[in-house]
Amino acid sequence: MMDIILREKVVEQLGFATADIPVGVSNRHVHLSQPDVEALFGAGYALTPLKPLLQPGQFAAEECVTVVGPKGSLSRVRVLGPTRLVTQLEVSRADCFTLGIKAPLRESGALDNTGDALLIGPAGHVELRSQVICAWRHIHMSPQDARRYAVSNGQRVRVSCNGERRVIFDAVIVRVRDDFALEFHIDTEEANAAGLRNGALVTLLR
Amino acid sequence: MMDIILREKVVEQLGFATADIPVGVSNRHVHLSQPDVEALFGAGYALTPLKPLLQPGQFAAEECVTVVGPKGSLSRVRVLGPTRLVTQLEVSRADCFTLGIKAPLRESGALDNTGDALLIGPAGHVELRSQVICAWRHIHMSPQDARRYAVSNGQRVRVSCNGERRVIFDAVIVRVRDDFALEFHIDTEEANAAGLRNGALVTLLR
Repeated sequence: MMDIILREKVVEQLGFATADIPVGVSNRHVHLSQPDVEALFGAGYALTPLKPLLQPGQFAAEECVTVVGPKGSLSRVRVLGPTRLVTQLEVSRADCFTLGIKAPLRESGALDNTGDALLIGPAGHVELRSQVICAWRHIHMSPQDARRYAVSNGQRVRVSCNGERRVIFDAVIVRVRDDFALEFHIDTEEANAAGLRNGALVTLLR
Repeated sequence: MMDIILREKVVEQLGFATADIPVGVSNRHVHLSQPDVEALFGAGYALTPLKPLLQPGQFAAEECVTVVGPKGSLSRVRVLGPTRLVTQLEVSRADCFTLGIKAPLRESGALDNTGDALLIGPAGHVELRSQVICAWRHIHMSPQDARRYAVSNGQRVRVSCNGERRVIFDAVIVRVRDDFALEFHIDTEEANAAGLRNGALVTLLR
């Protein structure tokens, strides 16, 4: 029995599985509420889609904002659309250092006790209070994908990759929803540390 | 026999070992030759030690330089001492993007077909040709440490860490020398991706 468990662990850990999940690298970006769109870009303003993202209905907007913190600022931070109920800024650890803010590692939407920052647009500014996070790395997938991998929503899994800078990412959150496309989301520092680019294929290990 | 191998692999892969190797996070930095010190800071100039590093005899110098590439520049890049025979600039993948240069992942000193950049100091500039790398993550250790871990110079090992952003780094190079202190060297992006800071303890897996 012990040996069966061990063998299963080896199979899991060493990844006798297929590299079939595309990587999506997220640079710093902001999701805006419609009131904040209007505060930043003007009354009645609507975001202009620039490029569709892999997740259905999501897009990079033409609009960018400047983010300001107590120590520094970041210009041309991309707005993603469509608008959401609550504005949320997603930055990297290096961005936190540049801005002089603290932003905890969080799943999207889990905003209690998160970071603060100031957004500046051509028509005005918006103060973000407990609305800034470093995104917890995660895999988007459909219920069909979840069945295929035998994982469930919220489960933590490992993800391995290839290349000269290969790593195994532990504590990757699985996010399952009908309208999710299969994609492993990491930020630019995670991508650079692992030598990964958009569209590279990685392997889910349980 | 197969089960023994499997069990050993499990022990190795899952890391039934001690987190006893301190992390050293390397921000972008440059090692200068004495002629380049003088070209940048003036004839007869000698570096001024600011802070000793963990590796015996190595120090962060008071001196900084500006690094320029075709797309951008980085100011206040720290000089490390003492001087070396050949000047070598070590940057991150994000730095390469900022500068607009390509720098391959390399061990220190392996400079064939590496990157170019311009260094600017208060007294002049130096053109680096095939002298810019992204450092391959590595563990410094003494021959005594190497015996204790049963590894040898040049061997590639895995390193695991703890915390909410934990990863297993694969392809970590072991570097053994009499005057090396035990330390796992990674760059800022690798550190941020893994949630590691200077002095955090990690585990060597073979």
